[in-house]
Amino acid sequence: MTRVTAQVSVSLDGFYAGPRHDGGGDWLASEEAAGFFRVTRWAAEASAWRERQGFAGGEPDVNSDIIAETFASAGAYVMGRRMADGGEGPWGDEPPFRAPVFVVTHRPRPVLRRRGGTSFTYVTDGVAAAVERARAAANGKDVAVAGGGDLVRQVLDAGLLDELELHVVPVVLGRGLRLLDVLDLPSKEAVELVPTRVVHTPRVTHLRYSVRGRAPLVLDDRGRGGGPVEVVATTDPAPRA
Amino acid sequence: MTRVTAQVSVSLDGFYAGPRHDGGGDWLASEEAAGFFRVTRWAAEASAWRERQGFAGGEPDVNSDIIAETFASAGAYVMGRRMADGGEGPWGDEPPFRAPVFVVTHRPRPVLRRRGGTSFTYVTDGVAAAVERARAAANGKDVAVAGGGDLVRQVLDAGLLDELELHVVPVVLGRGLRLLDVLDLPSKEAVELVPTRVVHTPRVTHLRYSVRGRAPLVLDDRGRGGGPVEVVATTDPAPRA
Repeated sequence: MTRVTAQVSVSLDGFYAGPRHDGGGDWLASEEAAGFFRVTRWAAEASAWRERQGFAGGEPDVNSDIIAETFASAGAYVMGRRMADGGEGPWGDEPPFRAPVFVVTHRPRPVLRRRGGTSFTYVTDGVAAAVERARAAANGKDVAVAGGGDLVRQVLDAGLLDELELHVVPVVLGRGLRLLDVLDLPSKEAVELVPTRVVHTPRVTHLRYSVRGRAPLVLDDRGRGGGPVEVVATTDPAPRA
Repeated sequence: MTRVTAQVSVSLDGFYAGPRHDGGGDWLASEEAAGFFRVTRWAAEASAWRERQGFAGGEPDVNSDIIAETFASAGAYVMGRRMADGGEGPWGDEPPFRAPVFVVTHRPRPVLRRRGGTSFTYVTDGVAAAVERARAAANGKDVAVAGGGDLVRQVLDAGLLDELELHVVPVVLGRGLRLLDVLDLPSKEAVELVPTRVVHTPRVTHLRYSVRGRAPLVLDDRGRGGGPVEVVATTDPAPRA
């Protein structure tokens, strides 16, 4: 069954990039990029990511396995326009997605077809419509919300997200673009999740959750929650069990 | 050797309480309290916490073990004035600390002595001075920064924190008091940490880090970091290994 998923690398204080780079100058030299490259360094060093980008090398470790698994489970993507535009150059003729990508935007644009199965379809009637388009295209596989953070938040806020995996990196950035910034929830309501998998490595801790949905904040509901959790303890270097 | 530690329960989006309750009305009925009680529910249900508070019952599980360990390793505490004042009534004649507590404040007040070894000493010459007073009183055990979040952030910001443990609870609060809010770091600098222990349970994931300190954000330093990590996979209900 198709699930709507999101996977985001974040610092321990919840930032997926440094402060937003507005306009002029070189994005690669910006504070935004410096933060982004720090929290995604674990992925950039993983062989599965490098292979998708057409780069040699990298480490075939458990982090790489997680990236490979994420790519393999996605049948279609949803993406924000800023990310799509920013990636258009760097991703080149053969972007890493190898699946249909639905870009949420206010500015129409013809479909952009790339090699390797990637296409970018620009959807102008909102987040929910883009998710539905992706669901129809995913052919039973998952719809992955590729980012940016604003879009992940919007999908979560709209109650459309089934699974959230945070790749938590051991760094405090102090400021920047925050994935889970203020949400538009009613007073004394929260979004409850159920942890389904924890994979820990020295460079990043992967926390996967199933999104249960909005629930009131009450003082005592100890009977709720707590499904089966897969805990994967890894090994780089070997932990004491 | 005395280390300066902090342990804080936070939501997945980094809040340790709901939006700040200012002034009138019942704090227990506030949004701030609703968020606070949600993220600390795991502790309130643990037998080690309940025993310290003089309550019966609770669950003698791994979460309880972690609380007992934290209490046992603290020889002295540092605390913000708002937390100290707010706790003064609820903690009663025999507060749970059973050790000297140094309260950072601008308003002098005589030492407050309670039963069971707890005392509150009001320190008016700053965070670093309070940490030093606590260090001298800790008798070789740890100095625990008890909170609130503002104080934990100030101690981290001042480079005084050796260990940070986040108890990450599977809930998105959406808004409130954020533990690691904006820090006053120089451009393109971050605080790097090294994970030292991960303990996962369905209700809370305990992420413990050693604070390495400020470091520039650079694009490639893959040779750094990665000490031994103790991974503890738990069992409530039994995970698939």
